[in-house]
Amino acid sequence: MISAAAIRAKGHVRQTPILTSPFLDEIAGRRLFIKAECLQHTGSFKFRGGWSALSGMDPALRKIGVIAFSSGNHAQGVALAARMHGVAAVIIMPDDAPSLKIDNTRALGAEVVLYDRSTQDRDVIGAKLAKERGLTLVKPFDEPLVIAGQGTCGLEIATECKELGVTGAEVLVPCGGGGLTAGIALALEKHAPEMQVRPCEPVGFDDTIRSLISGRIERNPAMTGSICDAIVTPSPGDLTFPIMQRLCQPGVAVSDDDCLHAMALAFRRLKIVLEPGGAVALAAALFHSDKLPDRDLVVVVSGGNVDPEIFARALAH
Amino acid sequence: MISAAAIRAKGHVRQTPILTSPFLDEIAGRRLFIKAECLQHTGSFKFRGGWSALSGMDPALRKIGVIAFSSGNHAQGVALAARMHGVAAVIIMPDDAPSLKIDNTRALGAEVVLYDRSTQDRDVIGAKLAKERGLTLVKPFDEPLVIAGQGTCGLEIATECKELGVTGAEVLVPCGGGGLTAGIALALEKHAPEMQVRPCEPVGFDDTIRSLISGRIERNPAMTGSICDAIVTPSPGDLTFPIMQRLCQPGVAVSDDDCLHAMALAFRRLKIVLEPGGAVALAAALFHSDKLPDRDLVVVVSGGNVDPEIFARALAH
Repeated sequence: MISAAAIRAKGHVRQTPILTSPFLDEIAGRRLFIKAECLQHTGSFKFRGGWSALSGMDPALRKIGVIAFSSGNHAQGVALAARMHGVAAVIIMPDDAPSLKIDNTRALGAEVVLYDRSTQDRDVIGAKLAKERGLTLVKPFDEPLVIAGQGTCGLEIATECKELGVTGAEVLVPCGGGGLTAGIALALEKHAPEMQVRPCEPVGFDDTIRSLISGRIERNPAMTGSICDAIVTPSPGDLTFPIMQRLCQPGVAVSDDDCLHAMALAFRRLKIVLEPGGAVALAAALFHSDKLPDRDLVVVVSGGNVDPEIFARALAH
Repeated sequence: MISAAAIRAKGHVRQTPILTSPFLDEIAGRRLFIKAECLQHTGSFKFRGGWSALSGMDPALRKIGVIAFSSGNHAQGVALAARMHGVAAVIIMPDDAPSLKIDNTRALGAEVVLYDRSTQDRDVIGAKLAKERGLTLVKPFDEPLVIAGQGTCGLEIATECKELGVTGAEVLVPCGGGGLTAGIALALEKHAPEMQVRPCEPVGFDDTIRSLISGRIERNPAMTGSICDAIVTPSPGDLTFPIMQRLCQPGVAVSDDDCLHAMALAFRRLKIVLEPGGAVALAAALFHSDKLPDRDLVVVVSGGNVDPEIFARALAH
């Protein structure tokens, strides 16, 4: 499915570059190879999954339109993919989502339906709209086509690392529901089996790391309290967890402060813009490499949709 | 020479991506294809020229070491290229250069010699050091190997645009002494002759645009007064100007405010970090496209070595 997604993606999904910096290598004490998914269309890897879902679904259903729940990056990924396919997209977003993300989703042509998190149930709103209009739901991570789309990032890592002469490496991936982590792990299982994928998360929201350790799906005690909004999810998915359990080792949980510091270094040394959730794996590589096996690190930086105010905080770091 | 430089560059110089955004296309009223040279090693295209000069020079001379004058990006490009060749680099920098650029140049292993712009003559200092130690001068732009190195950016533009289906286009290039502009124009003359290169500059420092109009080398009245420090040069070079005169049409001069605005949009829409001088061509494309022929625009964003304070100003835009 990943190979098929890659064929459908050709010419539509951007192949993102791997960046390096001798300054960052010095901080980490080893070589870092940074896969810059913030440079993907819509500013995050989520477009890969959105494109895969839209391009891979039944054309008759697609024509009617799609619906998605998201407070941000998945919303934009699905909205752009729908627009590029010329079909309607309805995105259910909480009314307290970052205004930049709401604006972008609208500007990409989607119909945004806002709901109040405290009084309304998005599932009810979504199910009603989907039924009334015949829309197909595109889930953010627990959906085979979406996992396959995110896996195309893993195919690129395998190819690009081979060109760079990097073989054995730990691969650090920012992890929310696990779509990107599972997709990359599946791609590397076949194309770079000597690489080891490790999900990274914010401290206090390390449900996947804890689940990998305990062997069963663990949940986060809260859904707020981190600046890493893009990757705060209640738990790994029913589809993504078994894949990660088979193929991944736990990564490192990092603090919000680590993320801001990593964002500042990415600004200074790589000239890329990261959002906090997109910087967790880089923060792990830079400030916690002592907790990882001593070999090269491939680091996925997964998104850059950050408000100027938060970015200014990182710059002041 | 450009083709030879590209062969020497393989595996050392980074092939930078072309980025796009439907939001930026909407502002410009046409398609923009943005060549992200800020993602080059050392954060600017200057590494291309530095690598070309070091890799192309007489190995016996190279072994003794090189010397360069620069307030910033050329310094870092030559310093890293020298380090990667395992040879010494001395860089003469004004003592009021941005501290980030001085620090980086030192951190890349170069010996930095600071001078006072108001009381000391850098040419005298440089000539003395070069003579005493037998160092070879690597000029920032008026040097065939350096122009050839910058030209490799043009080869990539030709190849990448062909893949994207872009043929006829105006190619906007930030222009200081003209090394990058001339190099790209030479590469495209052969590999994409239907493209038209246009140098872009800051208002009040538009020596090259005025020179192209008058047909002779014009000078800027001052050397300070723009935030675009990277591309404020007294005049186009003796080598670069005839090339630009034969191959280029005048671009657009943009204000500092235009540059800050373009930096903010590159942050928001492309997730890349630009310095003011690196953003002049993007500013021209976004805010002055009415002064340009009505076709696709290829826009080179040439560097991202900006202090956090200036970047914060752009974010507040």
